[in-house]
Amino acid sequence: MKACETLGIQLERVCGEKATCGKCKVRVEEGFHQEIYSSQKHLSPMVEEEREFFSQHSDLTGYRLACLARVMGDVVIFVPEDSRLTKHIAWKGLTERFVSLLPVVRKYYVEVPPFGREGVGREGARADFESLVSEITTRFALSDLRADHYVLRALPSLLRETEGKVTVTVWMNKEIVKIEPGYWDVNLGVAIDVGTTSIAAYLCDLVNGQTLAAEVMSNPQIRFGEDVISRISYAILAPNGLEELQIIVIDGLNTLLSQVTKQAGFQPKDISDVCIVGNTCMHHFLLGLTPYGLSRAPYRAVVQRALDIKARELGLDLSPSVYAYFLPTVASFVGADAVGVMLAMEPNLEAETVLTIDLGTNGELILSGEGRLLCTSCACGPAFEGGQVSSGMRATAGAIEKVRIDPDTLEVKFQVVGSPSWSDGQRKTNAKGICGSGIIDVVAEMLRAGIIHADGRFDSSISSPRLRQTAQGTSVFVIAWAHETALDRDITISNSDVRAIQLAKAAVYAGASVLLRKVGKTLPDKVLLAGSFGTSLDVDSCRTIGLFPGCDEVYAVGNAAGNGARLCLLNREKRLEAESMVQKVEHLELAKEKEFSRIFLEALSLGQYKPLASTKGSMKDL
Amino acid sequence: MKACETLGIQLERVCGEKATCGKCKVRVEEGFHQEIYSSQKHLSPMVEEEREFFSQHSDLTGYRLACLARVMGDVVIFVPEDSRLTKHIAWKGLTERFVSLLPVVRKYYVEVPPFGREGVGREGARADFESLVSEITTRFALSDLRADHYVLRALPSLLRETEGKVTVTVWMNKEIVKIEPGYWDVNLGVAIDVGTTSIAAYLCDLVNGQTLAAEVMSNPQIRFGEDVISRISYAILAPNGLEELQIIVIDGLNTLLSQVTKQAGFQPKDISDVCIVGNTCMHHFLLGLTPYGLSRAPYRAVVQRALDIKARELGLDLSPSVYAYFLPTVASFVGADAVGVMLAMEPNLEAETVLTIDLGTNGELILSGEGRLLCTSCACGPAFEGGQVSSGMRATAGAIEKVRIDPDTLEVKFQVVGSPSWSDGQRKTNAKGICGSGIIDVVAEMLRAGIIHADGRFDSSISSPRLRQTAQGTSVFVIAWAHETALDRDITISNSDVRAIQLAKAAVYAGASVLLRKVGKTLPDKVLLAGSFGTSLDVDSCRTIGLFPGCDEVYAVGNAAGNGARLCLLNREKRLEAESMVQKVEHLELAKEKEFSRIFLEALSLGQYKPLASTKGSMKDL
Repeated sequence: MKACETLGIQLERVCGEKATCGKCKVRVEEGFHQEIYSSQKHLSPMVEEEREFFSQHSDLTGYRLACLARVMGDVVIFVPEDSRLTKHIAWKGLTERFVSLLPVVRKYYVEVPPFGREGVGREGARADFESLVSEITTRFALSDLRADHYVLRALPSLLRETEGKVTVTVWMNKEIVKIEPGYWDVNLGVAIDVGTTSIAAYLCDLVNGQTLAAEVMSNPQIRFGEDVISRISYAILAPNGLEELQIIVIDGLNTLLSQVTKQAGFQPKDISDVCIVGNTCMHHFLLGLTPYGLSRAPYRAVVQRALDIKARELGLDLSPSVYAYFLPTVASFVGADAVGVMLAMEPNLEAETVLTIDLGTNGELILSGEGRLLCTSCACGPAFEGGQVSSGMRATAGAIEKVRIDPDTLEVKFQVVGSPSWSDGQRKTNAKGICGSGIIDVVAEMLRAGIIHADGRFDSSISSPRLRQTAQGTSVFVIAWAHETALDRDITISNSDVRAIQLAKAAVYAGASVLLRKVGKTLPDKVLLAGSFGTSLDVDSCRTIGLFPGCDEVYAVGNAAGNGARLCLLNREKRLEAESMVQKVEHLELAKEKEFSRIFLEALSLGQYKPLASTKGSMKDL
Repeated sequence: MKACETLGIQLERVCGEKATCGKCKVRVEEGFHQEIYSSQKHLSPMVEEEREFFSQHSDLTGYRLACLARVMGDVVIFVPEDSRLTKHIAWKGLTERFVSLLPVVRKYYVEVPPFGREGVGREGARADFESLVSEITTRFALSDLRADHYVLRALPSLLRETEGKVTVTVWMNKEIVKIEPGYWDVNLGVAIDVGTTSIAAYLCDLVNGQTLAAEVMSNPQIRFGEDVISRISYAILAPNGLEELQIIVIDGLNTLLSQVTKQAGFQPKDISDVCIVGNTCMHHFLLGLTPYGLSRAPYRAVVQRALDIKARELGLDLSPSVYAYFLPTVASFVGADAVGVMLAMEPNLEAETVLTIDLGTNGELILSGEGRLLCTSCACGPAFEGGQVSSGMRATAGAIEKVRIDPDTLEVKFQVVGSPSWSDGQRKTNAKGICGSGIIDVVAEMLRAGIIHADGRFDSSISSPRLRQTAQGTSVFVIAWAHETALDRDITISNSDVRAIQLAKAAVYAGASVLLRKVGKTLPDKVLLAGSFGTSLDVDSCRTIGLFPGCDEVYAVGNAAGNGARLCLLNREKRLEAESMVQKVEHLELAKEKEFSRIFLEALSLGQYKPLASTKGSMKDL
């Protein structure tokens, strides 16, 4: 172990040279190691503890434990990746990259000497906590450890029941946040992305960096309003409204935490670290901070910086002293989720111009390039999430997510979430409505088929059984006939549905254009679509309606906000990066940008940009 | 202000140059200052804010505010003590000393710029907390300030209601623990001494170092047992016993905090800092830590080091983010109270040998001298607090605290707590029993009068109406006749009462002797009696019965433990001193000292040492 460290390779050692964990195993590569064992020439012979460890791990022939084997002569040693303290984890971002595994929480196994024995020198028994800390300090390079009173309360019986054999979880090299009986090297973290509509949790193994389980649930706050504004009103106006909103989302998180750990065969108490992203409003609700300032100009958040808060203080049913880390926010409507996205995107400001779009009720736009990092948010309304659309619904079972219209016959085929095949016009499906990506498809296809004009009006010259007038005098187009649906009534798209999409897309388009103009560009080199909505979008339909300034490289990057939170879980330096990114990023308020309303009005027109000829790299999910 | 700082004098400045607080006022001593004002030659003329301040403070003629007045030429300035940042507070210890006023909490008045205005540069409004921190950082030499979510929750409405004018309390230069509306420079701290029998609280003004109020109450845990051992049993054996003990003492503290603040015209929410001392057991109960380890060999505490814990987490009804500081403990039976005593005594290890005795159910002994600091504790039993004595009671109204016996007539006169006159054998008094100091007086006087022998036996040859045999065959001596009492029955002292005192005094005597032998001494140069019991003791009686190895300089030093806590409140460096004292002090376990039981047996004999001829400095309360 010393030789490795001298050569600059830090080894794992959970157990502090007790031959318990085997984390520091190394392979003897040269020198006829079988002979070395017997001749005791180049490596010290195995002591009993080491022999016992290998007798239980017969697959490790040729290995030694670096904590016990001493170098006695020339020897060539191979240090496997998983014995190294700093591991590099493959990371799927825009391209495959690596991130060093450097979590804020680490585990240490210690055997605290039998009570009383160590106190002799100082005439009197040392206290439980001081004995523990002294043992950790002796074994590992840690000092000045503290612990809160919850840890202190649990300590005495733990030490007595285990005869001093415990595994200690240390946060930030300075605080003991958990003590578990015996040797227990499971070290789990959870990354949480709290969205207005849904909440996602990713359970990560902090020993090898793998994501063990993921779960998504609807944000239970939805019953106080689908959109942020109604929830803000509720929080401000209803007596105890804010507490109610906080409690309900925390309850939701507790359910999610118990599901995600159960999925991987663990329990919430096994979690040692939590990283949370969310838009500024969700962030405030989680923390019980009033959203009042977010609801009116000049749109002030209560706090922007990153926060470390004990999970118990939030009401999370985890081990009581564990911390939850909240990523910082940029501005009232550019939240910690956007910071997560930026982190996951690892923008190279000096390279190409990249536009990242995270769509939802609130669209977040990030532009990197020309040495700058800019962001803004635009109000899209709930149309992209199926809200305020006559047949709209969220992207769950029964939602039409893809639509094709034959430009000649105006016949429609569609695909429903969870079903791989297209409808055939006859067969009954479980279609119940249309989700965001389906609506964008519909509008794009109606435009291509000439059913609607670029200004959104229905072409009154077209005659088709699918196109009809309602009693209210509006036009509707039938996407699915009653017999094809699970509702037994037609699923249609109306004038006002098209109008809702026009407003939403104009906001995104104009926002992106304003950002691009700030760096002297009209088009980005690359567009990244973040979020689950981005993954299901049809990129050609996006181009057809002109959702964003067109470009020929468009990638869906999945839940980038959640990935940013995961990065902060795996590597503590990412937290500093997030915090410095917040300092660096330039935030634009679109309402203050003179050009915005002009571009917005122009962008109301559908199909402003034609699909580009090249489709190189078109829709990929990296 | 700059000139003062250049010359090494830090000035107060709560308001950060807003001419609001007037803390930085200085007097212009030379240079015809009236002329200077008008000629503007040597000091800059008053600006409007300064003029307004002095128009409201007509008593301050000749003064200027250092934050606004600029030096333009030669000038002589007098800086009054209360304008200096570091004040020196007179401190009554063994001798009058000074302590620098350097509390861990300081107040800062800020005016956070109107919302929105300051955000223009960065395109978007800064969050409430970031605006506040930026303003503090600009005005005062503080950076990297953090705040917990309770402070964050209260912040937005406070800033809006006060238009950004708030007073911020900063703990340890790093955390905002309180925000109050407007300018509010009241800065209070409370020192608490939690004893087995009673709890004392001292309210201190952290601006001038004065103690504003003091309150004492019985420890409400008494209903679970007078002594520590019964409470430990209750905590361990009763279901939720520990929680019950914790809740009841915290409730008691809340009552005390509301009394002590009310007495001074304030409220508990005005408190910014709390320092707590107590014996190890009381310390554990307050923190909800199991006393299990304290109840059996090798007598392990759960934790020894000093702890900072949010008052709300203890259940204290204070401003929620304020911290409570627990002084460190030395060992299971040498608690934070003993550390407080050591701190208050400021032992000079190289000077004379000083024995400090803090008597109660548990006697704590501290010896400094010969370059060493030693401590131990001895089990006295409850006799000194009136327990296990037939007519015993605590030192409250109705307790006989002083007794004199005429050696010729065996007539008795006594004094009752709260009454200045001696009994006359006829008059009715409100006597209900005898407290610790009274019992020691009785035993000493009975010994002097020959009623008992040195071994504690009653002299059977004496005949007196006051001396009689009970039905159980034991001897009793009447201290107060029924007609002199409030009970209408005789108050007496029995064989077994004398025996209880013998056991208690032997423990103290033997403990002190063992400590003295460790430094090669048999007698100390000075004895300090700490605690309220020490104050009421008659030093000649102590010498007569041989309570401690005799010496001719004995001082009562009052509640030294509470004084130690007060010191930690006034000067943060005292906390470091306490923590390093704990490292330095040598703790003896008497049970392990071979000599102890021998000396104990010898010391059972009353009056081992005769009163010294010299009574120089005898009983003084310094």
